[in-house]
Amino acid sequence: MLGYVGRILRVDLTHATVSEESLDWDVARDFVGGAGYATRIIHDEVPGHTDPLGVANKLIFMTGPLTATSFPTTTRYEVCTKSPLTNMWLASSSAGWWARDFKLAGYDGLIVEGRADTPVYLWINDGKTEIRAASALWGLDSDQTQEAIRAELGTEVKVCCIGQAGEKLVPLACVMNDEQRAAGRGGAGAVMGSKNLKAIAVRGTGRVSVADEGSLKEVNKAFREACRHHPLVPQMTKYGTAILLEHGWATGDTPNKNWAKGEWREGCEALNGRRMAETILRPHPACQGCFVRCARWIKIDEGPFTMEGPGPEYETLAAFGTMLMNDNLEAVCWANNLCNRHGVDTISTGSAIAFAMEAYEKGVISREDAGCELTWGNVDAILEMTEQICLARGLGALLGKGVRAASEALGQGTEDYAVHVKGMEVPFHDPRAFTSMVPVYATGTRGACHMHGTALAFELGAPLPDTGSPVGDVDRFSSVGKAVLAKIAQDRASIVDSLTMCMPPAEALSYSDYARALQAVTGEEWNAERVARTGERITNLQRVYSMKCGVTGDDDRLPRRLLEGVPDGSHAGRSADVPYMLAEYYRERGWDAQGKPTEAKLRELGLLKVVGEF
Amino acid sequence: MLGYVGRILRVDLTHATVSEESLDWDVARDFVGGAGYATRIIHDEVPGHTDPLGVANKLIFMTGPLTATSFPTTTRYEVCTKSPLTNMWLASSSAGWWARDFKLAGYDGLIVEGRADTPVYLWINDGKTEIRAASALWGLDSDQTQEAIRAELGTEVKVCCIGQAGEKLVPLACVMNDEQRAAGRGGAGAVMGSKNLKAIAVRGTGRVSVADEGSLKEVNKAFREACRHHPLVPQMTKYGTAILLEHGWATGDTPNKNWAKGEWREGCEALNGRRMAETILRPHPACQGCFVRCARWIKIDEGPFTMEGPGPEYETLAAFGTMLMNDNLEAVCWANNLCNRHGVDTISTGSAIAFAMEAYEKGVISREDAGCELTWGNVDAILEMTEQICLARGLGALLGKGVRAASEALGQGTEDYAVHVKGMEVPFHDPRAFTSMVPVYATGTRGACHMHGTALAFELGAPLPDTGSPVGDVDRFSSVGKAVLAKIAQDRASIVDSLTMCMPPAEALSYSDYARALQAVTGEEWNAERVARTGERITNLQRVYSMKCGVTGDDDRLPRRLLEGVPDGSHAGRSADVPYMLAEYYRERGWDAQGKPTEAKLRELGLLKVVGEF
Repeated sequence: MLGYVGRILRVDLTHATVSEESLDWDVARDFVGGAGYATRIIHDEVPGHTDPLGVANKLIFMTGPLTATSFPTTTRYEVCTKSPLTNMWLASSSAGWWARDFKLAGYDGLIVEGRADTPVYLWINDGKTEIRAASALWGLDSDQTQEAIRAELGTEVKVCCIGQAGEKLVPLACVMNDEQRAAGRGGAGAVMGSKNLKAIAVRGTGRVSVADEGSLKEVNKAFREACRHHPLVPQMTKYGTAILLEHGWATGDTPNKNWAKGEWREGCEALNGRRMAETILRPHPACQGCFVRCARWIKIDEGPFTMEGPGPEYETLAAFGTMLMNDNLEAVCWANNLCNRHGVDTISTGSAIAFAMEAYEKGVISREDAGCELTWGNVDAILEMTEQICLARGLGALLGKGVRAASEALGQGTEDYAVHVKGMEVPFHDPRAFTSMVPVYATGTRGACHMHGTALAFELGAPLPDTGSPVGDVDRFSSVGKAVLAKIAQDRASIVDSLTMCMPPAEALSYSDYARALQAVTGEEWNAERVARTGERITNLQRVYSMKCGVTGDDDRLPRRLLEGVPDGSHAGRSADVPYMLAEYYRERGWDAQGKPTEAKLRELGLLKVVGEF
Repeated sequence: MLGYVGRILRVDLTHATVSEESLDWDVARDFVGGAGYATRIIHDEVPGHTDPLGVANKLIFMTGPLTATSFPTTTRYEVCTKSPLTNMWLASSSAGWWARDFKLAGYDGLIVEGRADTPVYLWINDGKTEIRAASALWGLDSDQTQEAIRAELGTEVKVCCIGQAGEKLVPLACVMNDEQRAAGRGGAGAVMGSKNLKAIAVRGTGRVSVADEGSLKEVNKAFREACRHHPLVPQMTKYGTAILLEHGWATGDTPNKNWAKGEWREGCEALNGRRMAETILRPHPACQGCFVRCARWIKIDEGPFTMEGPGPEYETLAAFGTMLMNDNLEAVCWANNLCNRHGVDTISTGSAIAFAMEAYEKGVISREDAGCELTWGNVDAILEMTEQICLARGLGALLGKGVRAASEALGQGTEDYAVHVKGMEVPFHDPRAFTSMVPVYATGTRGACHMHGTALAFELGAPLPDTGSPVGDVDRFSSVGKAVLAKIAQDRASIVDSLTMCMPPAEALSYSDYARALQAVTGEEWNAERVARTGERITNLQRVYSMKCGVTGDDDRLPRRLLEGVPDGSHAGRSADVPYMLAEYYRERGWDAQGKPTEAKLRELGLLKVVGEF
């Protein structure tokens, strides 16, 4: 098959050895690449009982068959591991430039195993790999690390790395690359830190062969055209994902005050993408090869937050804005920069601070505990607590373990407002306003996740990938009929993460389009049905792996806070019938009543032998 | 061509004669039917200088080639005339049952001319037409008129008629039919009254032949499927058009307090379709042959507004709700019933009351003038003023002439808040929130109209009829690039009104779908390009006729109120660059800088000979 390099790099840090192996073509056929292929490696090589921060865990970096071709939005890598935050399956993804150069250096993927005695970094230079000392880099933030490596190896070198948070094994730590792009969720940065691996520098000048360039060009054209007509993507070019805040307060999509308040218009108006575009936004190039250009670049010319650099996304604006009742856009930009440089996930970090603010308000956390007045909207306290989390200091050392661990440690009823699923903090799309997100969050294979199932987009008029048309008649508050939307959204995410494409642009395409792209690149025969089936296969293997880690259907639940109606907003008083929705979802999935994939379903997906007994 | 009956009925009330003539097949080919065909008749037979309420004006009732076939939402008639409200071209349209029975009685259309000495009604019974005395019906409301005629002719008879307002020549009077369906805007009911024509009763048992039933069935199926996937249509089944209020306040689409206030959430929440469905809505059959079932049936069991009957649409809820700062849903239902029984347009009536309330607040209208305390939200005053307008009493006699005439009579700066274009009160989609409505309103061929150009739907993600896809990148506040949306929306309205289909369902289909339906029914060759060209031809002839009535490009303007930004709402402070937008629109249209269709454009559309010199 074309499109692939055909080789995987394996680095054993314990023994300081580097080896190459052939891509497993059967796995590539069934799991494509990216998160799909990496899931097979994790499933096969990392037993369920493995300690995520122990020497036996592995870290898989994978590109996809479309990466480094002319197909847009595929300059992404997936990093897959057993998560120290959720203690189960994890893949996180990041765009930018690194993935292309890594692949063109000669590899589809990289398996990192073992642990170095002292800090090291990898230098993968067009097929030659060195394990180099990184003691001089230890303690640097992600921007500084890149600068230092480029000063050594050349300005054209691309770097992914961890900041101080990953070094300190903070379970909210990310892998960072390029201009503050982050593989953000679930703590892959802490796993990297646990291996004493500071960075991976790459230089690649190879090329990827494609089966049918003409046909690929046609799909590319259709992709641009489909994006032009998508309800959201064109807005992202102008306003970034932050445009979602413009009316997110009116639908109830955007949560406020640790999910206790239904709407906060003033906040959304002060923080949204249109406001950003009208004030601090500056022109800037896109990620490699991308026509969407959703990433923001901002410049603040005066005041306490004077800075220039990458700007916040929707999720970050909600995390450090509405969730904390903070309407200071410049302060959110500053917090975003702090998180990115230290390398922590903005969603979970903002959520942990929101949780702490509520605990402070309720008297569970004192001023001495916090080291500051942890009151809603207090910018100084927000930035102080962010630094504490980034550097695992004081109360931040606890909060950086995530709200599940923090509420377990604090007790005193704090679990009532610890908003996570399976340890993963819930991203900022309220399932009380769009109930398709209830099964998405409750069953998400890496915990509550908006990337692994943007079902609410269907409720807002985006096309379904199987039919290519919007779903039509949907009551956004009803508990009935949402299972199928959740399943389609999750399985699509599985295939998109294996192609390593970007959401939401990938939402503009149908399964037939994915098939056309795959066929043009690989020369293999693909069709919509095979794409759908492949997505379902990958989702099911992720589920199986997490169950092997100890997850059961009992863990498929929403946090108590999301079962209570909010007092205000257009969704005031609404909440979903979660048991009904879960039962409907399990049926739709062909899973048993305890949420376990049945033997029949595994056989149907060709997973029976892969999975074995579990 | 199949689909058509092939005959037009002509009734001369002055001479009490009835005649039949053949449909002009060339006109049918170029103008289809409905409003398109009727525009040709008005243009050819009613000179521009005609007094709308004089004996020389004519009233054309037209069905379309799809009416009474199996193609859904085509049980509509268009009534076309020179408007007594705007003094230019007018067509108004209504659904229900009447249109089907009229066509199956043996006619595509009806031309009413002259004036009877005493009240009469028409009885068109399967090809036989009688002019019958209606003195006993004079003074009855529209419901009573139907009951009385059915008691005489049989319960299966379908009736269109005027209420007391049409009899009294109120320029806001409608033609009513069936269950309070209204050909509402522009005063066709007053023209009917001026002819002493109270009603038209029909019985039709014929059938319409179709060229290719199998192909038509396929298009029907595609229609249902397209509606199922449309962003709005499925919601209309559950909640009616009133669902638009749910977030209309958040986007700024719904005006408040005579367009002076940007948003009023409490009002929209108390009045919207979800609230109606949860309280007073009762199940009820749809219009003939329609799967959408958008019409509402309500039952109020107690209190001052106890009633059962047809419920209000979005426009009526805005007219008697938000525009008047009245959040009493039951009172709006009562006002709706008053308007429908007396036969006046709810949009213009509510607008006239809103105008009067502002004049009252500013001291231009006194308590003595009004006969009541005309304060915002005063339900008693709203109902009192509605009755005055319906019966042309007191201040209502002036208001019933529309806000243009009222502000001209009152002076004292009232033109600053008389919100109309060319005498037509502006419907309730704020062009400051969706600027594509600026050129739609400014140039609309019957004045400010949301049916003759739902361009804002494109800004909200609905598909364009030529491409079948949403338009994509649109900044709803920008003044640039909206002309093409306005033109497409207007030309689509022209073709839809000529096919006599319902908006918004027709918005779910593309021009190719219209072409497939027309070809299946008529056997003529149709394609998307011919559909688009036909719509443009019809719009241009409407424009030409109004220019022959004295309209010029100087009349293409927005009222002063809509040039001022609102103080609140998501569109606060926004207003469009109207001169720029008009220039862009004229260019897009191929009209000259004064807004006159050029000779080249008329030639291109095959209108040069039709129009002659003007």
